[in-house]
Amino acid sequence: MTLTKRRASAAKAPSTETAEAADESPWVPSAQRAMQRELKRQAVLQTAAQLFNERGFHATSLDDIAERLHVTKPTLYYYVKSKDDILLECVRAALGMMQEGIDEVRRNGGRALDQLMACMRSYSAIVCEEFGKCVIRIGEDPLPEPLKKELRRLKAGIDHEFRRLIDEGIAEGSIAPCDPKMAAFMLAGALSWIGRWYRRDGDLTPEQIADQAIALLLNGVLQPVPAAPARRKPRATAA
Amino acid sequence: MTLTKRRASAAKAPSTETAEAADESPWVPSAQRAMQRELKRQAVLQTAAQLFNERGFHATSLDDIAERLHVTKPTLYYYVKSKDDILLECVRAALGMMQEGIDEVRRNGGRALDQLMACMRSYSAIVCEEFGKCVIRIGEDPLPEPLKKELRRLKAGIDHEFRRLIDEGIAEGSIAPCDPKMAAFMLAGALSWIGRWYRRDGDLTPEQIADQAIALLLNGVLQPVPAAPARRKPRATAA
Repeated sequence: MTLTKRRASAAKAPSTETAEAADESPWVPSAQRAMQRELKRQAVLQTAAQLFNERGFHATSLDDIAERLHVTKPTLYYYVKSKDDILLECVRAALGMMQEGIDEVRRNGGRALDQLMACMRSYSAIVCEEFGKCVIRIGEDPLPEPLKKELRRLKAGIDHEFRRLIDEGIAEGSIAPCDPKMAAFMLAGALSWIGRWYRRDGDLTPEQIADQAIALLLNGVLQPVPAAPARRKPRATAA
Repeated sequence: MTLTKRRASAAKAPSTETAEAADESPWVPSAQRAMQRELKRQAVLQTAAQLFNERGFHATSLDDIAERLHVTKPTLYYYVKSKDDILLECVRAALGMMQEGIDEVRRNGGRALDQLMACMRSYSAIVCEEFGKCVIRIGEDPLPEPLKKELRRLKAGIDHEFRRLIDEGIAEGSIAPCDPKMAAFMLAGALSWIGRWYRRDGDLTPEQIADQAIALLLNGVLQPVPAAPARRKPRATAA
């Protein structure tokens, strides 16, 4: 069947026996071939990530991925080395997008608080996507140590950007004095968790979730005390 | 070696050939034996959880667990069925502790906000422990579907308690009106994340972490605006 299909599509190409000009060749030019290959590789990763997030990493086999893509397992091996390799690429892609999101915000400049909010928005959007969900739901646990280390390094880089923005926010007076490390962990934790519970068929869109999440994390959950003399909402002291 | 040890300890028991009274028997009474077995089972689970959290679930073998406990793998099988079984028990124990913590707070009663803070404190303490870390770092992913479902049900129960407390807090006027589901996810997410980054050899104790986490989540990270006419800190609207 596959062979027949391939022959059929080959038959659509100009049927000259000796193709003189490059654009008359029945073979696809190499640049285009590379692009097609990359598109297919991305489809493999996306489908795999979807299955990992639906069924769990352990419960997903390469056969499952091949089946959903309507290809054979040997075809998959043309694009990826192993299930571990797929996970690595998915997580790497998500962490790369997070870092790019932050870099773009930094380039645009502005108040640290506005930058922080923009970074939170970008982070939150990514954890609602399949690759981002993989970071949160599966993470690097199934991977061997050197790869774990690489992914931890990428994550630490993102974490440091959050800390730096909080630090700058304190300096500019928009963020209340606090331990930037703890605050960054709280923000990243709450936002990361979205990747655990977000469902595409849920009540809220990723944008609505980001709006509510940012408002809750910036303002806290307490009802402000309306007492006139108190000009600052008192910090809660844990009982 | 193990056999020699076992014989040596047996030799400590009264060496009467015919033990008439029960307390003279070289055999340990069954209630005590059950207790010893349970203690050893707990030691297996604790050590396994420690290794899972240090090296990852995939990278830990039953041999590693046996080695750290100075026993053989067959000895382990006397207490647990498999690595999956160990993970299930660790996660079940942590979720059980979380639920018990909440139940105790509920029994003690008081303002919803105080109850919420007490629950956050208990939750945060548990995710700093080995079993709690397993819930956050590994979760149910490696387990087969029926067990996954059971653990998800336990988690959902805890989540609902947080929502209910937030709902009650809004009703009593201590918590600002919000979507209790979203707020519960934010709190649980930020607190759960502690289980990912907390290190026993870090700068902060679990108690200090809980104090800071609760303060940050209740108050938010914004510097309150000190303008006199504004009696309420404005809700941030995401740009």
